[in-house]
Amino acid sequence: MALEQEGTVGPTRRIAVDAMGGDAAPEVPVAGALAALAELPDRIRIALVGELDRVEAVLPPAARRRVDIVGAPETIGMDEAPALAVRRKRESSIVVGLQLVASGKADAFISAGSTGAVVAASVLELGMLPSVDRPAVGAIFPTTTAATLVLDVGANVGAKAFHLHQFARLGSVYIRDLQGLDQPRVGLLNVGEEAEKGGDVIAEAYALLESDPEIHFIGNVEGHRIIAGVCDVLVCDGFSGNVLLKFYESIAGFVVGLLRRPSGRFRRFGRVGQIVHVLDYAEYGGAPLLGVHGVTIVCHGGSPPRAIKNAIRVAVRSVESDMVRDMTTALTTLGETGM
Amino acid sequence: MALEQEGTVGPTRRIAVDAMGGDAAPEVPVAGALAALAELPDRIRIALVGELDRVEAVLPPAARRRVDIVGAPETIGMDEAPALAVRRKRESSIVVGLQLVASGKADAFISAGSTGAVVAASVLELGMLPSVDRPAVGAIFPTTTAATLVLDVGANVGAKAFHLHQFARLGSVYIRDLQGLDQPRVGLLNVGEEAEKGGDVIAEAYALLESDPEIHFIGNVEGHRIIAGVCDVLVCDGFSGNVLLKFYESIAGFVVGLLRRPSGRFRRFGRVGQIVHVLDYAEYGGAPLLGVHGVTIVCHGGSPPRAIKNAIRVAVRSVESDMVRDMTTALTTLGETGM
Repeated sequence: MALEQEGTVGPTRRIAVDAMGGDAAPEVPVAGALAALAELPDRIRIALVGELDRVEAVLPPAARRRVDIVGAPETIGMDEAPALAVRRKRESSIVVGLQLVASGKADAFISAGSTGAVVAASVLELGMLPSVDRPAVGAIFPTTTAATLVLDVGANVGAKAFHLHQFARLGSVYIRDLQGLDQPRVGLLNVGEEAEKGGDVIAEAYALLESDPEIHFIGNVEGHRIIAGVCDVLVCDGFSGNVLLKFYESIAGFVVGLLRRPSGRFRRFGRVGQIVHVLDYAEYGGAPLLGVHGVTIVCHGGSPPRAIKNAIRVAVRSVESDMVRDMTTALTTLGETGM
Repeated sequence: MALEQEGTVGPTRRIAVDAMGGDAAPEVPVAGALAALAELPDRIRIALVGELDRVEAVLPPAARRRVDIVGAPETIGMDEAPALAVRRKRESSIVVGLQLVASGKADAFISAGSTGAVVAASVLELGMLPSVDRPAVGAIFPTTTAATLVLDVGANVGAKAFHLHQFARLGSVYIRDLQGLDQPRVGLLNVGEEAEKGGDVIAEAYALLESDPEIHFIGNVEGHRIIAGVCDVLVCDGFSGNVLLKFYESIAGFVVGLLRRPSGRFRRFGRVGQIVHVLDYAEYGGAPLLGVHGVTIVCHGGSPPRAIKNAIRVAVRSVESDMVRDMTTALTTLGETGM
């Protein structure tokens, strides 16, 4: 694990950004990319992937020094069937961006476009890590203490116990590498504290997690304990995770929207400031796709430039910490212990 | 359906209240009962079920006119295994209270004690409605528009498609009878809008709901649409529902706690007032247990007197609207259509 991250000395890194992804593309992805470059050392470069004319139109000439534009004439819409769109639109910004990563021309890919298409294209272009048969989308849930990585939130239904176990290993590596925590606390989402709660699959996952020495398992976590940040990694089925994430985002949007002042700004201090600090989601950047052979970060379609910027920083840290290598190791030892 | 509810003219009704249930028993249940009686016509009576000495100590003599005390020397703790506790502690307030309903000496039962024990004892003492093999706990989710009844939130894992269909029928009758809505909108909790989303069980439930003329089915509801109140009844597996409910309660507690003024009061107007109005949960009273042959309302252990009072009013309305009879009819026609 590289503790010295994002230093001025080091190899050149190139982050591919989907310039066509999100509700306000290409303006917002480009603005996010420029904001990230302003904070990152010179050796970090960005490849904006999208329609040449449209991207060039919003990119200031002075920014070209650290930005390349990679042409991708097609765009995958939010309503298209992901697997089909990815196979048909080979010239789309999502496919082209991930091909840059697969061929080694870029180190990571970030998109605020269709999550389904980004996941499908990542699986197709990057391939899976050893023994993984479904990747997991991780979402950072802000809590009243530290944030919690919840995975899977990717709407994959019917996770088996070994999937949940893999998610725990992948999430642990992610938090270890990205946040420098030695022993991330792993919780299992459940409807009670007792080991036998939640049905066969979850009880089996409990047993796997409890007996795995590579994981700091703290037991079941019920819905009301999430907000307190009792664990660093919360493992769950993609159905529950997806429902929880979307529910959380909508409540946060409702509350923060009403707390916004007429000026559009928030009070950043006092009790209202505490609410905004926790619920104002955009601070935390995108959702990592874990289990594929490369770094992919999925951003919300409505992400502001700040969220794109944060996602790029997270991508750089994922690359510099050798997250993919560490995950490969974690999965290999998982296989060796026969778990 | 009785549209004239809680009128001064009508039969005597007796609501059994678990005086030993909740974090601050017997004070809070007794205070809630007295608050309810103050708002309800004289023909409504309450039976406080619990330890005679302790209940008598907190009950003002003047209140005795409409209150009976029914002795129950045992109490089931929140940590006891529900099914076992219910079988062993036959003299507990929960078992005695439900026996009053089963024998016709009371019309409904309310408890802020162990939800698991109340559910187990209701099944045992009241029995199930025809063709129901698992009852559902319904929770009222406050939304930015009308409230939504979410069921099952009772932590029953692995609902099959026909369970979800039963929940939809039961929930529709509940909203129709209690709120006087002719065609309650029914949604199915899912991870996408399309009919085929969410796996086999949910896709099958979608087909059952869509083809049932007794239900006004509006389709799948994703997590972010709940807060907008897009449906009156939201059907889901007890795992997802339980996780969502507990998560919602905890966020509401966090936000409302910080918006509380030093005086303990809230601002009830303006933008902060809107947040408090939606998230301040206690207004909505308890969670009905649906599918058993009788009226049972489960309250949160931390319920204030106002929540107990509201639960009693909901219980009276459930009794007066003949909810159990209407549910029996709804389940019978469900059986007849071979669905």
